[in-house]
Amino acid sequence: MRTSIATVSLSGPLSEKLTAVAAAGFDGVEIFENDLLTAPLSPEEVRLRCADLGLRIELYQPFRDFEAVPADRLDRNLRRAERKFDVMERLGADLLLVCSSVAPEALDDDALAAEHLRLLAERAEEHGIRIAYEALAWGRHISTYDHAWRVVEMADHPALGTCLDSFHILSRGSDPAGIAEIPGEKIFFLQLADAPLMAMDVLRWSRHHRCFPGQGGFDVAGLVSTALRAGYRGPLSLEVFNDVFRQAGAATTAVDALRSLLLLGESAGLTSPPAPSVPTGFAFAELATTDSEPLRGMLGALGFSRTGRHTSKPVELWEQGEARILLNTGSADRRSGPALAAVGVETPDPGRAVRRAEAMLAPVVPRRRAARDAPLDAVAAPDATELFFCRTDAPDQPSWTRDFAAVPGDVVPADAVPGGVRRIDHIALTQPWHQYDEAALFYTCLLGLAADDSLDLADPYGLRRSRAVATQDGGVRVVLNIAPAPGPDDHRLQHIALATDDLLTTARRARDRGAALLPIPANYYDDLYARHALDAETLAAYTELGILHDRDEKGEFLHCYTATVGRVFFELVQRVDGYQGYGARNAPVRLAAQHAHQHTG
Amino acid sequence: MRTSIATVSLSGPLSEKLTAVAAAGFDGVEIFENDLLTAPLSPEEVRLRCADLGLRIELYQPFRDFEAVPADRLDRNLRRAERKFDVMERLGADLLLVCSSVAPEALDDDALAAEHLRLLAERAEEHGIRIAYEALAWGRHISTYDHAWRVVEMADHPALGTCLDSFHILSRGSDPAGIAEIPGEKIFFLQLADAPLMAMDVLRWSRHHRCFPGQGGFDVAGLVSTALRAGYRGPLSLEVFNDVFRQAGAATTAVDALRSLLLLGESAGLTSPPAPSVPTGFAFAELATTDSEPLRGMLGALGFSRTGRHTSKPVELWEQGEARILLNTGSADRRSGPALAAVGVETPDPGRAVRRAEAMLAPVVPRRRAARDAPLDAVAAPDATELFFCRTDAPDQPSWTRDFAAVPGDVVPADAVPGGVRRIDHIALTQPWHQYDEAALFYTCLLGLAADDSLDLADPYGLRRSRAVATQDGGVRVVLNIAPAPGPDDHRLQHIALATDDLLTTARRARDRGAALLPIPANYYDDLYARHALDAETLAAYTELGILHDRDEKGEFLHCYTATVGRVFFELVQRVDGYQGYGARNAPVRLAAQHAHQHTG
Repeated sequence: MRTSIATVSLSGPLSEKLTAVAAAGFDGVEIFENDLLTAPLSPEEVRLRCADLGLRIELYQPFRDFEAVPADRLDRNLRRAERKFDVMERLGADLLLVCSSVAPEALDDDALAAEHLRLLAERAEEHGIRIAYEALAWGRHISTYDHAWRVVEMADHPALGTCLDSFHILSRGSDPAGIAEIPGEKIFFLQLADAPLMAMDVLRWSRHHRCFPGQGGFDVAGLVSTALRAGYRGPLSLEVFNDVFRQAGAATTAVDALRSLLLLGESAGLTSPPAPSVPTGFAFAELATTDSEPLRGMLGALGFSRTGRHTSKPVELWEQGEARILLNTGSADRRSGPALAAVGVETPDPGRAVRRAEAMLAPVVPRRRAARDAPLDAVAAPDATELFFCRTDAPDQPSWTRDFAAVPGDVVPADAVPGGVRRIDHIALTQPWHQYDEAALFYTCLLGLAADDSLDLADPYGLRRSRAVATQDGGVRVVLNIAPAPGPDDHRLQHIALATDDLLTTARRARDRGAALLPIPANYYDDLYARHALDAETLAAYTELGILHDRDEKGEFLHCYTATVGRVFFELVQRVDGYQGYGARNAPVRLAAQHAHQHTG
Repeated sequence: MRTSIATVSLSGPLSEKLTAVAAAGFDGVEIFENDLLTAPLSPEEVRLRCADLGLRIELYQPFRDFEAVPADRLDRNLRRAERKFDVMERLGADLLLVCSSVAPEALDDDALAAEHLRLLAERAEEHGIRIAYEALAWGRHISTYDHAWRVVEMADHPALGTCLDSFHILSRGSDPAGIAEIPGEKIFFLQLADAPLMAMDVLRWSRHHRCFPGQGGFDVAGLVSTALRAGYRGPLSLEVFNDVFRQAGAATTAVDALRSLLLLGESAGLTSPPAPSVPTGFAFAELATTDSEPLRGMLGALGFSRTGRHTSKPVELWEQGEARILLNTGSADRRSGPALAAVGVETPDPGRAVRRAEAMLAPVVPRRRAARDAPLDAVAAPDATELFFCRTDAPDQPSWTRDFAAVPGDVVPADAVPGGVRRIDHIALTQPWHQYDEAALFYTCLLGLAADDSLDLADPYGLRRSRAVATQDGGVRVVLNIAPAPGPDDHRLQHIALATDDLLTTARRARDRGAALLPIPANYYDDLYARHALDAETLAAYTELGILHDRDEKGEFLHCYTATVGRVFFELVQRVDGYQGYGARNAPVRLAAQHAHQHTG
């Protein structure tokens, strides 16, 4: 599988883009004309730079508004093409993308279009250049891939083929099955982009909302498979216009892009990386802090007990039921205030999980560990949260829990008590502004989680996007969200949701032990009573403890929140009758309460 | 004209929204239910707060998914309504917005819908409450205003009327002429929003892209006129969901909102503020700086001469042809580095211009002036640029230029020399991220300028939006743009474009006198040559001086740029044969060159 990406997909000047593309590990690159025009590098310098970086220039693009023009215009267009052939020779590029004309003067005449493209191909051939003709979804007369192919077939020249673009094909609702009828050697190039399914004019959709395969709603893998069966042997090349990627760092975006292509290659059967080892639950959540007292107090109030300390690091283990929280006072220097620094997931085959993570370009976190410590592998997620692959207390290998030993004052791990916390239900991580889609792809790709739809949640200061990634049985659930506007990292809130079978008891106990619960306005309960005729006692208890209520087609959800410590807060949740969500309808109430609490508390 | 705004249009908690609405000068407010639910204030406290602020609560909204339900559901919906009537009594609100149902269980049965709405109105009447029924554009069975009105007519109850919403009506392409057939007293409420014309599913369009009247593409004023002719006597109320307004400061947005309503009132003939005094040209541009040497050097190289100094302030006047630049070293403390602080426009009737500005809520800038100074009035634009209304050298009143006197070393103002700068062509101001639409409305409203379409310009680090506002004859042109991502104020670039009839001469002279011109990559000229067969000499001169070229249906445009000093740079422009644009196609080249120059220069 040869991989490539169009320079327009990344931000910054051309030289930075090329460096990022090579560093991520791509084999080649499409040079977007505007990136060359705005570059201080000559075409020869770009050629040398690419050669140094080991990048093949797969395509120069786009050449616009060429074909099916009145006679007086043809000469000018051919002259323009000759100048571009010169540039391509200097670049060392031998394939030119010509996209179907959008010019008002273009004629609706397939024979004329074919004649002109044949002329262009004849000229190109003299320079050792080939032409890949592509239908833009908003082309003036030619806007579908099968129409473009009919014109190419009619022109019948060896230096003329077609370029297929998954966005242009799938956004129009065209059936990609027809690709099978195009001879593979006439598919000169394959450009790939995904997009969220939206009802929107196709030009705006294309220019602003494309995303990498696996991040949207198109069956890009199916289209690739069809093209491969037709005999396409060129590179898989990403061409994505996206408002966010235009602003994000090129190096990060390039890695994200290649990961999407590797996942696509796996889906299309081109590569066989180690399969995901789908996690079965959370092993632990690790909080890093320099001052552990506030978190110790909070954990104690929530019913956790300290059950051990790490034998070689300043880390404490706190437990309740199957929920384990690590308090790390040794690694917090890089963050401001308490933060959720790492998550351990119970993984049937940790070794395979790490091999898959590496194959999927996740940075493996170097561990400083003592000789006697159990081996424990971790990779870094896009937001720098560390992800550990654990097999807790498995009989066949040393458990990470053996590195913890009880000291005086610690208690023996106990089974869950009635009304206590049973396990970690989910964790929620606010992502850096530019990495929302990337984060979802990271978790689905590495762990085999499935992504829910993205929701807009109303924060008093803007819309917050949120989407959950989870295993099918809900054993591991991670909620990814982004704040309404870009802000500093230390404002990115994170939380740990703890599951109980009896929220009223758990919350009341926590409150009585001194946990500060987030107060919810009385108006919320007036509305809750208007919607569901709850009895007075229940309503009073909810009001007293700040318990929120939601319902889906399966069941009910009760949840409440603690105050925030640093960037971190806790949620207590009770799922009734298989409720699957996260209480999204209550998010505006919770977010407003958190803003209010911040200002007063 | 009674003015109102829905709280959902503004950011922040309810109490801040109410303060902002009152401070801007609105008469009333719609209370959006979610704003109440998330507020720590009780309904009684909200009522008191509004009374203190002099705000009438015009509407409580929305009550959803009520009508045309199966019998078992009706009781629950009526019970829910009774609870909301209680809340409204506590609030002191007497009008409830009921929007057409989107619930899957709603039946397609107008008679049933009318029967249920009549039941609701009967209950409401017992509480002294009236019901305004509105068709959501995406309502399940009722989605047009005329359909909603037919159901209201069928229900035939005095406490039931209809609510018209300009977005729901105009986004569906409905003809608002039918409003004339609704008895005015049955139009209980009128909600107003504009929106840019977009092909997009109407729910997304509504939730994210509404804007204030005059900022979009709908004929909101026409709709209002029709409703008034029908006999509507209620308030004009804004209900705008917009991703940007959700994040912007409520106080600023509220002023912007009321300005749009005042302009709408004027268009609809409801009010008669002083008419705009449309400016005829630029009187001056004022640069504020603490260190004037770099700008003095730049102005000198561009061919300007110092012709005088202000008699009471540390301000120098530099002139060339009809272009005047003020260098102010007394007011720069509030900005970092040289910045474009003020603009003077030649105004036929400065007094009327100020009265209009005040009527349109523009803050008048208090002037510190000596007794002998000529009177000169200014208002502050949304980005804090000061806007002066001038009549330079008019015979009937003292000219601001009389406050400047030549000192030794100054020269006498000369007529334009051949190949010199003739006048200020336009100024370009990067707006704060949240104030792009507001700024366009400010200039069109105050000065009577017309706004061009908004363009997306590709900066290497994201898309930059840009739109021009100009007088019909092009005498005053202001380009407003926003950077791709929010950033600090001192990064907001500004520039002054100077018109010449002979750019080659002007640019060459400037370069020879030591002006640093922005270098443009050679690749740009290869492409220019490919598109237009320019002769070798011209191409060499363009390359040497960094001259860019554009063409529209009327004529040609030549332009080049100086290096940036602080936040400010200059552009030299030559318009040939009535070219009307600003060289947008060259913006990516210029922006990339500026980034490159910043890193190396």
